[in-house]
Amino acid sequence: MENIIENKIDRKSKNYKPRMAKLKNKSKLKIIPLGGLGEIGKNITAFEFNDEIIVIDCGLAFPGEDLYGIDIIVPDVTYLIRNKDKVKGLFITHGHEDHIGGIPYILQQINMPVYAPKLTLALVESKLEEHHMLNDCKINLVEIGESVKLKNFNIEFIRTNHSIPDSCSIALHTPMGVIVHSGDFKVDFTPIDGHIINLQRYAELGKKGVLLLMADSTNALHKGYTMSEKTVGETLENLFSKATGRVIVSTFASNVHRLQQISDCSIKNKRKIAFSGRSMEKISEIAMDLGYLSIPKDMIISLDEIKNYPNDKITIVTTGSQGESMAALSRIAASTHKYIEIQKGDMVIISASPIPGNEKAVSNLINDLTAKGANVVYKTIEEIHVSGHACEQELRIIQSLLKPKFFIPVHGEYKHLITHAKIAESMGVEENNIFILDTGDIFELSKTKGKVIGKAPSGRVLIDGLGIGDVGNMVLRDRKNLAEDGIITVVVAIDRANKVILSGPDIVSRGFVYVRNSEDLINEVRNIVAKVVEKCLEDNITQWAEIKNRIRREVDSFVYTTMKRKPMILPVIVEI
Amino acid sequence: MENIIENKIDRKSKNYKPRMAKLKNKSKLKIIPLGGLGEIGKNITAFEFNDEIIVIDCGLAFPGEDLYGIDIIVPDVTYLIRNKDKVKGLFITHGHEDHIGGIPYILQQINMPVYAPKLTLALVESKLEEHHMLNDCKINLVEIGESVKLKNFNIEFIRTNHSIPDSCSIALHTPMGVIVHSGDFKVDFTPIDGHIINLQRYAELGKKGVLLLMADSTNALHKGYTMSEKTVGETLENLFSKATGRVIVSTFASNVHRLQQISDCSIKNKRKIAFSGRSMEKISEIAMDLGYLSIPKDMIISLDEIKNYPNDKITIVTTGSQGESMAALSRIAASTHKYIEIQKGDMVIISASPIPGNEKAVSNLINDLTAKGANVVYKTIEEIHVSGHACEQELRIIQSLLKPKFFIPVHGEYKHLITHAKIAESMGVEENNIFILDTGDIFELSKTKGKVIGKAPSGRVLIDGLGIGDVGNMVLRDRKNLAEDGIITVVVAIDRANKVILSGPDIVSRGFVYVRNSEDLINEVRNIVAKVVEKCLEDNITQWAEIKNRIRREVDSFVYTTMKRKPMILPVIVEI
Repeated sequence: MENIIENKIDRKSKNYKPRMAKLKNKSKLKIIPLGGLGEIGKNITAFEFNDEIIVIDCGLAFPGEDLYGIDIIVPDVTYLIRNKDKVKGLFITHGHEDHIGGIPYILQQINMPVYAPKLTLALVESKLEEHHMLNDCKINLVEIGESVKLKNFNIEFIRTNHSIPDSCSIALHTPMGVIVHSGDFKVDFTPIDGHIINLQRYAELGKKGVLLLMADSTNALHKGYTMSEKTVGETLENLFSKATGRVIVSTFASNVHRLQQISDCSIKNKRKIAFSGRSMEKISEIAMDLGYLSIPKDMIISLDEIKNYPNDKITIVTTGSQGESMAALSRIAASTHKYIEIQKGDMVIISASPIPGNEKAVSNLINDLTAKGANVVYKTIEEIHVSGHACEQELRIIQSLLKPKFFIPVHGEYKHLITHAKIAESMGVEENNIFILDTGDIFELSKTKGKVIGKAPSGRVLIDGLGIGDVGNMVLRDRKNLAEDGIITVVVAIDRANKVILSGPDIVSRGFVYVRNSEDLINEVRNIVAKVVEKCLEDNITQWAEIKNRIRREVDSFVYTTMKRKPMILPVIVEI
Repeated sequence: MENIIENKIDRKSKNYKPRMAKLKNKSKLKIIPLGGLGEIGKNITAFEFNDEIIVIDCGLAFPGEDLYGIDIIVPDVTYLIRNKDKVKGLFITHGHEDHIGGIPYILQQINMPVYAPKLTLALVESKLEEHHMLNDCKINLVEIGESVKLKNFNIEFIRTNHSIPDSCSIALHTPMGVIVHSGDFKVDFTPIDGHIINLQRYAELGKKGVLLLMADSTNALHKGYTMSEKTVGETLENLFSKATGRVIVSTFASNVHRLQQISDCSIKNKRKIAFSGRSMEKISEIAMDLGYLSIPKDMIISLDEIKNYPNDKITIVTTGSQGESMAALSRIAASTHKYIEIQKGDMVIISASPIPGNEKAVSNLINDLTAKGANVVYKTIEEIHVSGHACEQELRIIQSLLKPKFFIPVHGEYKHLITHAKIAESMGVEENNIFILDTGDIFELSKTKGKVIGKAPSGRVLIDGLGIGDVGNMVLRDRKNLAEDGIITVVVAIDRANKVILSGPDIVSRGFVYVRNSEDLINEVRNIVAKVVEKCLEDNITQWAEIKNRIRREVDSFVYTTMKRKPMILPVIVEI
């Protein structure tokens, strides 16, 4: 019906627009970043063309210290749920948590097919298995270099380098033009697996014309180039050759190339290799099964076999490079690890940089290990880690090859995005064609123009235990209040008919003061509450809410004046 | 009486020892670090010789995120209180919080005289005034270069360089020999006030013989030299010359030399200067009154006068360089500052490095300011800050001048101390004469030998509001529990005589779930509690503690199974 109306052309009408323009208008491409902009983590971007939506990545973020009790954060995908029927597939650039960690949560709500290269897919699979969802999900292997064809999108996976194998950029071939989404990447001319980023394909796309580039901004503030993964191997070789006791190396479990280099050094020095930590054991096994990590079977031992070998014949590879309190290395440092206790002469290599926010935890870890007699080697004193992200010069390389008309910096906080925008501008992208977007922006792009046309529901969904999104701002505010000064619960039983207190006031506090030393204070609170309640009853104030308010006010004021503290006051009135 | 016995020499006795040895033995020197070793902050060291104790510094530390609700940490000085009569004076190396912040608390317990140079003393005074203690305290001005003579100690203040004027080393001339305590220091040959560290006096002391050096380890992990404060001035000049809007500089209020350089740049560029933030206003006033900071009166304006001047004629100097949530710069970034709102074109210079643990807060601050349109300049992108602590080569300089027989690295975490120990060894101090001490160690030193002979009570006293030490491990554990999963209070009124529930169970939760969306859950908890209580009454279990235990166990188990959360369960039974 609508079609018929549109077919009638009335050029005299006030609303008349040439039909071509109208059609073009209808067919604009929308790009909606639902996470990862103005923040680090939970990367996810939706691309919409007419009745088709595809999604690139669906990651998680880790909570800051202000998010009391929260385990992880996943993106709000309300926009996708509302457009459920349009959503045709989820395409994954690589297997890091900030790109795949939200997948179980999104697939519970939208059962779309997932497409990714082998290692990435194996990690997604293992995650879905943990959530007992494997049988319900449609996962599809894509060879790197190949494409998935949908009605409006042709999704091409292009090899890049990063701190996990099988990392890809994605080139979206759309009716509007080609969009390149870099994923997380760096340019490594000597990668451990020999697979160099496919710069030729970038050049080819650039030559034909790229409409839009969306590129990783994580290291935009760093000048120069990111060093090759290979340089870490050289430092490791040097350290291993000097080690006389056990070598304990902590790194990200997903950094399979790092695991390969650690293993190679161990084999060269006739050291058996043991993996410690849940994700380290899991990912090393997957990587070996799939041929991404190559270690002779007889060189691998389990943790309970360590005791059978001399110290200089042992390498232990562990999780915990971020000082996470429950990870293997922290348990080793705290002497609570089942199999490993630090001995004088152990060399502990922390082959990672602290992620912002973890600096203090890592520093504490180094102190604890050092105090126990280990020789701890870390980033400040040796070049024992390289980043997986492109620095300024590498960002310039891909700008020069792709020469995009439009540019959107992605994956980064505001300071990273704005710096990356300036780099793009200096490489020739027109200032007006560069867009710094916010998570949730609906960005519309034609062949000639881009603009933000609205806002999709977006933000963070907090996961606490099994609860998804049931902890909101009010609960968090209460947790903060409870964390800082504890709680005073006041219970009083009232016979309203006879206007008397039947029992109490009982005062119970938690996280406020050590009660045994504060009996006077607690007694004083009890007296204050008794007076307030008696006065209310005398004055015929019979609304519980009002009595509670008065109790709260009086106790709060007394405690603050006496102690300069503001515990939560929780009055409970029991009416008999 | 005892004296007489000692005068009788019985060389045949089993207990006989030559008298000289006995006297020497009696006169050993004790050194007791009561803070600042194996940690950053709350520096304090006691020196004891026979019936005399002197103390160097008494600082505070700031709590880590695990110390919920704690404002500051001061040292446990039980050892000094027990030896109150011996304690003769407190000598202060410089006016930073980690060296003077504990003074009001220690003087409340031991009213000893305080000795310090002018600026340091003024800052101590201002602190005592805030605590309404000024009239009761004996504070004494010492000129740098001069000494205070006590019976056994001659305490000499030697000028050094650091990020606050009037910083000193202290040379303790004792009957056992000379001990040099470096204080916090660096070697700056072009300091802003022209007062270079007195290396000649170090050389003179070294020539005569130094028994023990205790030196600042903060930057021991950093090779090379710390840059001169003057280099920051050059960067500032360059930035100011390019600024077209307001310049807002955030730095440590106590870094008076930095304030001077910021002011000089402002004056040169005809910018009026306004100070923002409580400590910035206070310290700049003290420094100007005493002549440490020199700014023409007409160049200073108050915050409410800013609006009367064009943007390019304004410099604002603020606190908050560490991203502290209540400090001026954070309030500016959050648009809650009374007088200052970020405008496009403002240049915000963060002239400081984040102290370990503050990295994330500073990063968030930079993002917020950038997003509001400010051009934010910080350490990663410009050399806008230098450290106040000596790097490896400077540590070598003072080792080479003082040539101490014994060495104790101080002021640092374990990793700093052990690295500093290795530096000292490589400079010629015998390995056996280097001691890495723990806070609380009682270290005994003779002319030829040092050893740890015991442990003094020591540790941290937590200050929360007006409460000193009333928040202990149990309260902190409760706060952590409350922070992570909140609390469920269960109130039930019982008529024990008739074995019936009179009222309730009432379920009140805070920080647990958003109650409005969780009615079913709360109802389920109510049912569980009712069943538990009814069963107890039926079974004649009349001990409240036992009923409470069962409530706790059942609710805990239900909530954990349903939600994988462990809120605190607080049962209250009201007996009518």
